[in-house]
Formats: sequence, C-alpha cells, structure tokens
Amino acid sequence: MARNSHELGHRVKREEIIAAAAEVFYERGFDAGTTKEIATRVGLSQPAIYHYVGSKETLLREIALQVDHEMTAALGRALDRGSTPREQLRAVVEEFTAAVIDNRRAFAVYYKELHALPPDVRRRIADHERDFVAGVATVVVKLQRDDDLPEDKSTIALTEAIVGMVSWVHRWYRASGPLDAAAISDVLLSLIGLSQRQRA
Amino acid sequence: MARNSHELGHRVKREEIIAAAAEVFYERGFDAGTTKEIATRVGLSQPAIYHYVGSKETLLREIALQVDHEMTAALGRALDRGSTPREQLRAVVEEFTAAVIDNRRAFAVYYKELHALPPDVRRRIADHERDFVAGVATVVVKLQRDDDLPEDKSTIALTEAIVGMVSWVHRWYRASGPLDAAAISDVLLSLIGLSQRQRA
Repeated sequence: MARNSHELGHRVKREEIIAAAAEVFYERGFDAGTTKEIATRVGLSQPAIYHYVGSKETLLREIALQVDHEMTAALGRALDRGSTPREQLRAVVEEFTAAVIDNRRAFAVYYKELHALPPDVRRRIADHERDFVAGVATVVVKLQRDDDLPEDKSTIALTEAIVGMVSWVHRWYRASGPLDAAAISDVLLSLIGLSQRQRA
Repeated sequence: MARNSHELGHRVKREEIIAAAAEVFYERGFDAGTTKEIATRVGLSQPAIYHYVGSKETLLREIALQVDHEMTAALGRALDRGSTPREQLRAVVEEFTAAVIDNRRAFAVYYKELHALPPDVRRRIADHERDFVAGVATVVVKLQRDDDLPEDKSTIALTEAIVGMVSWVHRWYRASGPLDAAAISDVLLSLIGLSQRQRA
C-alpha cells in the first residue's frame, strides 16, 4: 500500500513535470527552454527533474511518447465507439479533436521539435504516427466503398486532410474562444458532411 | 541594362540561397543548420551567403517573409478568380494548395522555427498570418450567408479547418506520390463539398 502510493506519487510528479516541459518548450522552443524553468514551474529543484524524468532530451522524448499514446488511444476509443464506418470516422474526429485540445502544448512541441531527438527514437515515433494515419485510412476506405466519400487514389489525401484539419486545432484553439472541443469537432464534422444532423 | 542584369543576377542568387536555407533548416532544424552547408548546396562561400542575404537569422526571416508573401499572393489571386463566394473559396483552396506544395520546405520551416526570430519580426509575421486567415474568413462568412455552410459562432473554426487541411499538405506531400497539386486540391474540395463536380 505504501509502495503503491509512493509509485502513484512518482507518476503524478512525472506527469506534472512533462506537462511543464511541454509548456516551456512550447513558449521558448526546445533549444531555448531550460530544465531550470521547468523546475521552477513545478516547484522542484533541477536535480529533482533529472531524478523523476531525466535530461531535456528525455523530457522531449516523453512529450512525444505522450502524444503518440494520445493518438493511439483516441483512435482505439473511436473504433470501439462506432459500429459503422460513418460512426467510426465521426468518433475519430471527436476523440482526436478532444485529445489535441487537452494536450495542445504537447502536440505543438511534437509537431515542431522532434528533430532534436536521436534518429532511432524519431524513426519509432514516425512509425507510430504512420500507424495512426493508416488506422484512420482503414475507416476512410470503408466509407469510400459505401460511397459516402469519393473513391480512387485519393485515400491518403482524404485521410491526411481529416487528420490535418484536426491536428491544426492545436495552432488556433484558445481556451477563451467561443467553442469547446465538442463544438469544434461538430464544426469539423459538418464541414465534411459527417455531422449527426447531416444525412442522418 | 548591365545594371538590370546585375540586379537580376543578384535576385536569382538570393532566391537560390533562401531555397537552400529552407532545405537545410527543414532537414536539420534551424539550430543545427549551418551557413556552411547552405553555402555548399549553392556552390558559394560562407562570406558570399552573408553578402547576398545575411546571417542565419536573416535567412530564416527571409524564408518567413517568402511564405508570408506566398500566402498573401495566393489569397489575392483566388479572390480575383472567383466571382461568387463559392468560386472564391474553391480558388483559395486551389491557389493555397499549389503555394504550399511549391514552397513546402519554406512552409515547414515557417510552421516550426519562427521562435528563433526576434519578437518584433515574429509579431509582424503573426499579424500577416492573421490577415490571411481573416481574408479567408470573409469568403467563409459570405458562403455561410448563402447557406452553403452551417452558420453561427463557427466562422473561425470553419476557416481554420480549411486553412489547416491545406497547410497540412506540407507535412505529407511527396513529389513521388500519386497526386499532383491540382489533384490534391480537388480531393480537399470534394471532401468539403466544393468540388466543381458537386452541387455544380
């Protein structure tokens, strides 16, 4: 029991540190961001940052792996939720939009700063992103077959267009804006003719 | 005449250097990229790079201004081409997609590396990008009025969704892929119900 609560405390600390690192790298860029500033934000010492997570590079890798995990989890939930390709694609947009907004600092750092990681880590992360896009593409292909979307060599372009419009939300979303995550994904769905109020 | 051809030569060299800088910063990241590698790619000396353009920071600023210019020019051409909001938005997607693909290295650097520029330059560039989005939004608003698109507080989300799906092309486009710029913008337009073959 003591051990479990110790482990839980350790995990919570790690998550706090990784979130603070995402903020600092988002605001300053990876190169200019320092573990000192990250430490200050979470009220810890620099050595404590090293103890709980590691170097700046390790922090960046952890941010990337978190984004990686969020994308995979969002896709998994979406595929579980929908029983038709149409419902699944709608759920992909909803789940992925929510994940991007909840983790928008981490996504911004992920899309900008991966070149600072070692090639093998970068390659693994790129492979996972490709798997995510391929997962979305399997739903797009099924919809193309159902004639809800135009068919041909365009599967990747269609898939990336959908992934792109959702990913882009990290760049313009403001918590103070008029729309929350659910409202934003509804706008995106209406744009691509997948809102629940369209062709229901 | 001699002076004009001298000026032309100077401009061509600058453009070559800026294009090479975009490639190097794209491949290595701004911080790891060097003027030495840029010089090698265009067959010039490092001092020549400084003579024609300037420091690494100046190169980055020029890349950003080029993207800035390409966005503004694409929007201008699109608004000129269309006589209805529907045609204008179609033209925005076509012109912007072509600009992103033609300058995809510069766009990639633009979206990733601006934090390395001084705050006043960054602010000016951000203002121009906001103007571009606002320009696209004026077309979206007109279309919303015509009931081609859903109306309400969603104008910015709709606009950014369209800007985002096009901007995102810089991340996945491959010259060796099955679709060229025209085919890609047609896929994007079909996804949002604006293809010329839909609701014509």
